[in-house]
Amino acid sequence: MSLCDVGLIGLAVMGENLAKNFASNNFKVAVYNRTGEVTKKLISKNSSLSHQLVPCFNLKELVVQLKTPRKIIIMVKAGEAVDKVIDGLLPFLTIDDIIIDGGNSYYRDTNRRFKALQGKSIHYIGMGVSGGEKGALLGPSLMPGGSPSAVLQILPMLQKVAAKKPSPCVYYMGAEGAGHFVKMVHNGIEYAEMQIIAEVYDLFRKVFNFDNEKIASIFQDFQTSDLNSYLLGITINILKRKDELSGQYLVDLIVDEAQGKGTGKWTIMESLEYGTPVPSIYGAYSARSISSQSNLRKQISTIYNKKIAPKIPSENLLDILKDAMRASKILSYTQGLNLIEEASRVNEWKTNLIDVISSWRDGCIIRCAMLDQMIKALSQNSNLLLTKEFSSKLKDSLIPLKQTLFLALESGVATPAMSGACWYLEYFSKTNMPTNLIQAQRDYFGAHTYRRTDRDGVFHTNWE
Amino acid sequence: MSLCDVGLIGLAVMGENLAKNFASNNFKVAVYNRTGEVTKKLISKNSSLSHQLVPCFNLKELVVQLKTPRKIIIMVKAGEAVDKVIDGLLPFLTIDDIIIDGGNSYYRDTNRRFKALQGKSIHYIGMGVSGGEKGALLGPSLMPGGSPSAVLQILPMLQKVAAKKPSPCVYYMGAEGAGHFVKMVHNGIEYAEMQIIAEVYDLFRKVFNFDNEKIASIFQDFQTSDLNSYLLGITINILKRKDELSGQYLVDLIVDEAQGKGTGKWTIMESLEYGTPVPSIYGAYSARSISSQSNLRKQISTIYNKKIAPKIPSENLLDILKDAMRASKILSYTQGLNLIEEASRVNEWKTNLIDVISSWRDGCIIRCAMLDQMIKALSQNSNLLLTKEFSSKLKDSLIPLKQTLFLALESGVATPAMSGACWYLEYFSKTNMPTNLIQAQRDYFGAHTYRRTDRDGVFHTNWE
Repeated sequence: MSLCDVGLIGLAVMGENLAKNFASNNFKVAVYNRTGEVTKKLISKNSSLSHQLVPCFNLKELVVQLKTPRKIIIMVKAGEAVDKVIDGLLPFLTIDDIIIDGGNSYYRDTNRRFKALQGKSIHYIGMGVSGGEKGALLGPSLMPGGSPSAVLQILPMLQKVAAKKPSPCVYYMGAEGAGHFVKMVHNGIEYAEMQIIAEVYDLFRKVFNFDNEKIASIFQDFQTSDLNSYLLGITINILKRKDELSGQYLVDLIVDEAQGKGTGKWTIMESLEYGTPVPSIYGAYSARSISSQSNLRKQISTIYNKKIAPKIPSENLLDILKDAMRASKILSYTQGLNLIEEASRVNEWKTNLIDVISSWRDGCIIRCAMLDQMIKALSQNSNLLLTKEFSSKLKDSLIPLKQTLFLALESGVATPAMSGACWYLEYFSKTNMPTNLIQAQRDYFGAHTYRRTDRDGVFHTNWE
Repeated sequence: MSLCDVGLIGLAVMGENLAKNFASNNFKVAVYNRTGEVTKKLISKNSSLSHQLVPCFNLKELVVQLKTPRKIIIMVKAGEAVDKVIDGLLPFLTIDDIIIDGGNSYYRDTNRRFKALQGKSIHYIGMGVSGGEKGALLGPSLMPGGSPSAVLQILPMLQKVAAKKPSPCVYYMGAEGAGHFVKMVHNGIEYAEMQIIAEVYDLFRKVFNFDNEKIASIFQDFQTSDLNSYLLGITINILKRKDELSGQYLVDLIVDEAQGKGTGKWTIMESLEYGTPVPSIYGAYSARSISSQSNLRKQISTIYNKKIAPKIPSENLLDILKDAMRASKILSYTQGLNLIEEASRVNEWKTNLIDVISSWRDGCIIRCAMLDQMIKALSQNSNLLLTKEFSSKLKDSLIPLKQTLFLALESGVATPAMSGACWYLEYFSKTNMPTNLIQAQRDYFGAHTYRRTDRDGVFHTNWE
């Protein structure tokens, strides 16, 4: 029996589909999964590929099935599991073998593993894989990073399984963990694009009162322009999809609490490390965070539900700016106090917010007149947005805040802090955020499931 | 000779002033600095306090000078230096002694140290100290966290040295690293407030054409309201201050590149960990990051310098939203690509952005029509904002983007991703950001120095 071209460890949906992709491209693949049943199932479900898939039931068995230098792709959960597989493989590997981590590993882990294995003359390639289940099966975008010579060795093989339009979507991404870094940023951009689409959808439905079909047809028109994208395309399908249970449009029934899996957060963390702001990604990530706090949103929405139409007035401009400062300031304290409250809850610190504010009343840089009012207010509620004093101040200041943002937009003055304050309050006072669409998109391309507004449980739709 | 009430390690400006504060409050203080000369200088400069300050020249000497249970305040640079001091002290300490870290330590380090010392029955208190040099001398805000009983023991002493209005500004902040966490968030709020003031200043000078005296007098009026704050107060002094060298207003001569020392960044990182967005702080932090890239701003400003006055038109609204999507999308790619470029530069990964975009053309979630244009554009410049194709698209789309933000503000639809895209471009296309004021504020309360537009060097002003 001939030896295998490549080994694949971890046969969850991404690993399984990648294995089938390699096999369909006439590579002989040694497959292994920690739970042997999964391996057996893969083989029995894919009898047409049986001569290309070689089931293995321990790591040694997998290694001996492979041509040298061996090429072993790991598709397990990011984190410790990757280190365990590497440790398990090492005793059986020889110099110049190549390990490829195709999971969503944090690139700093990949840097570390690259260096550790370099010392043992084993090549380590961190490879971003994008395209979801379907991409893994039919042709993903692949982002390998590591030593150029090692990537060059596997490139011909990767080009066969990668997406092909207009040429194989696999290139060398740079040294060490660059492949996983690029994949991380890819996901950050994905967050931003999904949120941008959701914002426009929100304007269409709430301001223009367009229905889903109308929005879909507009997006269909956008698809014929330079705005054409995979995400916009699936959005069209999502908007047109009717629910089988109720006959209603499915997107309208999806709970607006959107989730994420870490790479959006990592992108922002790394942007802080490298000093390169990513405000669109930050906005997208924060929208999801806020969306997941739906109980709080419901409470806050009862207070701040007035629709307002700010116009820039010609007089009282100074009062308007003053009110805008007040609103922005209250909202930045709100953000900070909510962060302290949550950290104290998670860590069981028993931090008393009134004592926190009390200790800031004098001596410190942020001492100010408002702190005394905060002390009074916090005895009612630990969230300033829900206190009588500050909700009343904010309600009075919100139109002037928006008028100020108008003025700033009109005159080209940037207002990151004040506009952040504004959308923070806007989203926290919404019971219907556009994150139902984001959940639908996530379910569409990644089978991440969603919840419904009309019944309990977790749902997945075969959208196509 | 009687024993000392408290030990103080680290006599840089904050430590020195805190030692003098304790001594002035009739505490006997054993002082130690790694460089003995600094200790000698402190003693010789403060002969009036000579009976309250006991110079020590090694850690053992300091420990034996102290009443038990010993209370030792560490005021050294956050990080390894703190661990070194703790390790140096440990051999000489006995059960129930109390170590207080008054530096700007990262609270996760404080958590770790707290737990390690708990095992040795030594109390560890992480204490935030705010108020800058002057606060340390005359009365800072103190934020101690750790075990409640240990904090209770030192509270009477801390109440004597703390700020006093309206009551001593020192309270128990919670367990483990809660004190440093609260101080971190304090600094995050400080970032936001400084940026909010800077934004209003920017509107006053650029839109209203007010001069510094006029802005100062308006802020003076604001000071008589609930907006009264220390930061607004020092801003007034800054705006009125004339430069001794040139006779001009000093704030106008300060380079607009603002810096930071880490706690703003930490606040955002932790807000990501705990899932509680802090957009105002993120905006403030990002404004400083962008401000520090003044060469890039100069280049970008030559392209996007047109003043624009968006109004919401009654027709072509769909075209406007389409253009807004285009601008937002280009700007989120710009953010992501700039992050990859910077990480590759720092890590020497040799990542090729054209290959990155090429690998995304098919198979992945963010595949879209625009990528082919990006490949062409990136051969001109790695920053999309500086390429012919995308700068032309952005210039055409910026007014519609603003019109869309207008519409969103008017209708109460939040647009975090699109508004983030807008201010990202606005700030990157400014040669004069309002961060000169932030540098002045930082120099005012923390002696962080600033640079001038009219001469080389680093400057500090005694602002009061």
